Amino acid sequence: MIVTIIGLGLIGGSIGLGLREQGFARHIIGVDNDCAHGEKAIALGIVDEVLPLEEAVRQSEVIVVATPVDSLTTLLPQVLDLVNGDQVVLDVGSTKMPVLQSVEGHSKRAHFVATHPMAGTEYSGPEAAVRGLFRDKCCVFTDVEKSAPEALEVCRRLYESLGMRLTYLNGPDHDLHVAYVSHISHIASFALALTVLEKEREEQRIFELASGGFSSTVRLAKSNPDTWIPIFRQNRDNVLDVLDEFINTVSRFRTLLIKKDFSTFDALIHHANDIRRIIG
Amino acid sequence: MIVTIIGLGLIGGSIGLGLREQGFARHIIGVDNDCAHGEKAIALGIVDEVLPLEEAVRQSEVIVVATPVDSLTTLLPQVLDLVNGDQVVLDVGSTKMPVLQSVEGHSKRAHFVATHPMAGTEYSGPEAAVRGLFRDKCCVFTDVEKSAPEALEVCRRLYESLGMRLTYLNGPDHDLHVAYVSHISHIASFALALTVLEKEREEQRIFELASGGFSSTVRLAKSNPDTWIPIFRQNRDNVLDVLDEFINTVSRFRTLLIKKDFSTFDALIHHANDIRRIIG
Repeated sequence: MIVTIIGLGLIGGSIGLGLREQGFARHIIGVDNDCAHGEKAIALGIVDEVLPLEEAVRQSEVIVVATPVDSLTTLLPQVLDLVNGDQVVLDVGSTKMPVLQSVEGHSKRAHFVATHPMAGTEYSGPEAAVRGLFRDKCCVFTDVEKSAPEALEVCRRLYESLGMRLTYLNGPDHDLHVAYVSHISHIASFALALTVLEKEREEQRIFELASGGFSSTVRLAKSNPDTWIPIFRQNRDNVLDVLDEFINTVSRFRTLLIKKDFSTFDALIHHANDIRRIIG
Repeated sequence: MIVTIIGLGLIGGSIGLGLREQGFARHIIGVDNDCAHGEKAIALGIVDEVLPLEEAVRQSEVIVVATPVDSLTTLLPQVLDLVNGDQVVLDVGSTKMPVLQSVEGHSKRAHFVATHPMAGTEYSGPEAAVRGLFRDKCCVFTDVEKSAPEALEVCRRLYESLGMRLTYLNGPDHDLHVAYVSHISHIASFALALTVLEKEREEQRIFELASGGFSSTVRLAKSNPDTWIPIFRQNRDNVLDVLDEFINTVSRFRTLLIKKDFSTFDALIHHANDIRRIIG
């Protein structure tokens, strides 16, 4: 198939590498506001050529929109306006409600599939693209009843070629779930990094002492604000709910330390260990 | 050398595997309250034999004490009582002040070296022991002026054979630094796991959606309470200080979300990104 990828960052770039490797795409066109990204994407073998948006959409059978979530809401209706024939448009955004609202009632809504391939790293830009990023990870399709069966089928084949498991949620459920399993982890990690940077002025000491446990917990603190600010803006209400619960839980540990109630502390750790059942 | 390892868990076991592989130890004796641990350690090639404490110490040139930190304060004076000749005793505890106080003024204090090899995983027991756990990690020696130069030299060679970088701190500084770079990460991770377990009742959803970011942030929540409760008990005051700062920082993110102040939120993420300079 001929595929256009709009937004040649970590996710768009990794999709390009995967679709080419798996033979899903025989020609890949890139679109990016940033010329340097386009040039890098060609050099890295992510896309075959870079074209302006209209020309790219016109030539493509599948259009993957992989920009930060704030620009999706203006870009997706524009792309749908350009669609003719049986082209398929999909986004890969981490929040879904604003995206779904932006295409609600569009005459070509059925051409669009709202998806969220749940994979990533803390790095960004085309040079962060990695082969196999999506393998054995989960891709969420939202509000599938609003997409044409043929469009859904193309998206299923696309993600299955990348090795992903598919799951289905409505928009509100998606945005709530990702607040729990993704967005709150990022805030915890940002806060941890800031705490350590603030309190620990002798940075060389942190570098020397940082063990694997610390590194894995603060890894997400390296994430790009240009990706994450739009996500927090769009999913603010859900994130606030989860953040309140998180602050309560951390504060509970604080109270137990103050009271030297190590038996309840022990019970809480035992309960936290239950996460093993879930993440293995 | 003939080495005794007391406490055949993740750390003691990994030291055994490493010292044998590097040829530092030609015979390794294990000591453990738990008979099953002793048998597993023999089966896994961690130790050659298991002996009672007194017999093991009598036959050994180096005694590594690798039990949870609460038992160190009673065990270390007992081991030093048994020492004769030029044997070297070292502990590997994650907190140092109670250990240092427990041997203060002991007639054989100079035989003892207080060390903290900063490496680990979220697993425990002899079956969690891994080759190469310590390679390129940092080992902290504390209050070295109280140890005999010959004892220090043996410990340096021991840790260098495991591939560790050595650094030196006094006891109070050590305990403060580890509160920042290790202990607080564990509490953040426990709290994150509890938050998600509590709020998200449909556990299958978490399993499906949990991506790499979530898994790395909650990894430490799998840690064993038998290891960690004694650490929090001993380092309570330092952990409380860091925890207050962490709660303030998380609460600041909450306030920014409530006020929709995404420009300050953006500045905080940029600052948090500075952690890249430190953990690479």
